Parts: sequence; C-alpha cells; structure tokens
Amino acid sequence: MSAGTEVLLVLTNLPDADSADRVTKVVLESRAAACVNRLPACASTYWWNGAIEHAAEIPLLIKTTHAAYPALELALRKAHPYEVPEIIAVPVAAGLPAYLAWVANETRQPSN
Amino acid sequence: MSAGTEVLLVLTNLPDADSADRVTKVVLESRAAACVNRLPACASTYWWNGAIEHAAEIPLLIKTTHAAYPALELALRKAHPYEVPEIIAVPVAAGLPAYLAWVANETRQPSN
Amino acid sequence: MSAGTEVLLVLTNLPDADSADRVTKVVLESRAAACVNRLPACASTYWWNGAIEHAAEIPLLIKTTHAAYPALELALRKAHPYEVPEIIAVPVAAGLPAYLAWVANETRQPSN
Repeated sequence: MSAGTEVLLVLTNLPDADSADRVTKVVLESRAAACVNRLPACASTYWWNGAIEHAAEIPLLIKTTHAAYPALELALRKAHPYEVPEIIAVPVAAGLPAYLAWVANETRQPSN
Repeated sequence: MSAGTEVLLVLTNLPDADSADRVTKVVLESRAAACVNRLPACASTYWWNGAIEHAAEIPLLIKTTHAAYPALELALRKAHPYEVPEIIAVPVAAGLPAYLAWVANETRQPSN
Repeated sequence: MSAGTEVLLVLTNLPDADSADRVTKVVLESRAAACVNRLPACASTYWWNGAIEHAAEIPLLIKTTHAAYPALELALRKAHPYEVPEIIAVPVAAGLPAYLAWVANETRQPSN
C-alpha cells in the first residue's frame, strides 16, 4: 500500500456555481478528469496582499490520475477566474480496484 | 513525518441520506472505522458508459487505519448500492497524537 | 511527483460556527496557516467511551506547510474546545506552483 495508486484527488475552489459548473464541464469533456463533486459553498478566509480576506467559494473534488494531472492543472489554470487559484492534488494510497480502474479508463483519450 | 501515520481518511459517496446513514452504522458497528462525517449533498458529474452523467450524492469522510482498511473496503462494497462505488483512501502524514491513537484504538476489536 | 510538495491539507472539526471562526482567526493571525475553508455543518458519528455518539460539526480545511505544521497543531490544540480534537494532515503530492509558493510565503513570519 505504501507505493500508493495512480489516482489523485484534486481540490480547487471557484467563486460561484456558474464558474464551478463551467470548470467541471471543461475538465470532464477534455478527459482530464473522470468525476467532479461540487460541494455546497464554503466560507474561505486567507491572507492576500498583507490582509486577511473573506470570500464564499464552491469547492470541487476532482478525481484524476497522475498521468492526466498535467492536463488537468493546465485546463484548470486556463478556465479559472482567479490569478492564483488553489489547485492541490492529494495522493490516493488505496481504493476499490474497480473504481481506481474506472478513473484510469475514463481519463484515457479514446484516440490514444 | 515522511513515513506517515497509521491513519487513513477514506472517501465514499452515497445516493441519499438513508443509504449514507445505513453505511455509517455498518462501518462503525463492525469497528471498521472510528468516525464518519456525513457532508451535505454535493452535485456529482462523471463519465459513465460514454456519457457525462449528473447525480446528487452524500459524501462520507471516514477515519480508519491501514490495518482496518481491508475490512472497511469490504463492508463498504457490500453495503453500497452502486455497482462501482467511489472508495478512495488518502494517507494521513501527521496528526494530533492523541487523535491518531484514538482512531487506532476504536478500530481494534475488543475480542482481539 | 513522488516526493510530494511542502504543502499540507489539514482537517479539523469544530462544534459550531463561533468556535470555527475563532479557530480560523487564531491560525491565520499567527501565520500558522495561509487559508481556511469552513464547510457547511456535517453530521458526525463516532465511537466515544464505548458508545456510538452523534454530533453536528463544522469541518475546516486548512492549508499550511510541513514547516508550519507543528505551530498549527499547537495552536489548534490550544484553541479547540474538544478534549481530543480531530487534527489530521494530508500530504499534497502536486499542485499549481504559484499556489504552493503562496502557501509557503504566507506561513513565513515577516520577522524571520
């Protein structure tokens, strides 16, 4: 189990439901991800330009693979309205084999 | 810290509150987990049989150990209504020692 | 990617919005974290003193670094109303370089 799996759980936060839905569509249609969960709005508090700021944000939990991660990061960066969006990828150490295989298959381009 | 801890954070998504509560009860009563957080419903979008599908889902965040993970995965697979449920385990690199010990103790069967 | 990044995603759960906001303020003002997302209330179920208990809780997702984690854990333990609070740190395997640098910069004390 220590070597982990090929799957990554990627987190990002969007400013509203419209941008969250747009980003979800982009990353799925390009096969950069297999699945996106849009959580209800959260209250974010963070340092920005020397002050503590507050904003409502929509968190997305995105399931992809190590192989597809570079394409996902690029797609998120292009589609995201923020200057420095949160894009962080958490490793998956273990999981249901059929689910892990499904993530890998859905992020593989049909033409490859 | 690089070696990580014995604790795992496991994510799964259920189709509704009833199945989420049932799964929570099963994994706790069997000592396959120490704690389950049922998040509010999320909007899931994913590839399935060649089409992009949408569903409302209830995410569960489950705290267990590497040692109890195989029993947890088996219990989730049996209790879960989906054909290929999301079951992914994220490693815990560090944590409050008393909390980590509590997770380990609560997932140890009294009879063992 | 296997070596991971310096960033950690830390999870904790507070009993209500007031304590969640207080903890958020403490960890940001002390520069023990760069960003905190307060999720909507979840339903927690867990073993405690031999019985399965239920509670509503407010999850926080806290972004920090390995270097700042010890200060964060100490601040959380002091500010948290629970006897054994959940404090778990998940590693970040990859991420947007500008975001990872931002987390590192915001958790570095100006006086250091």
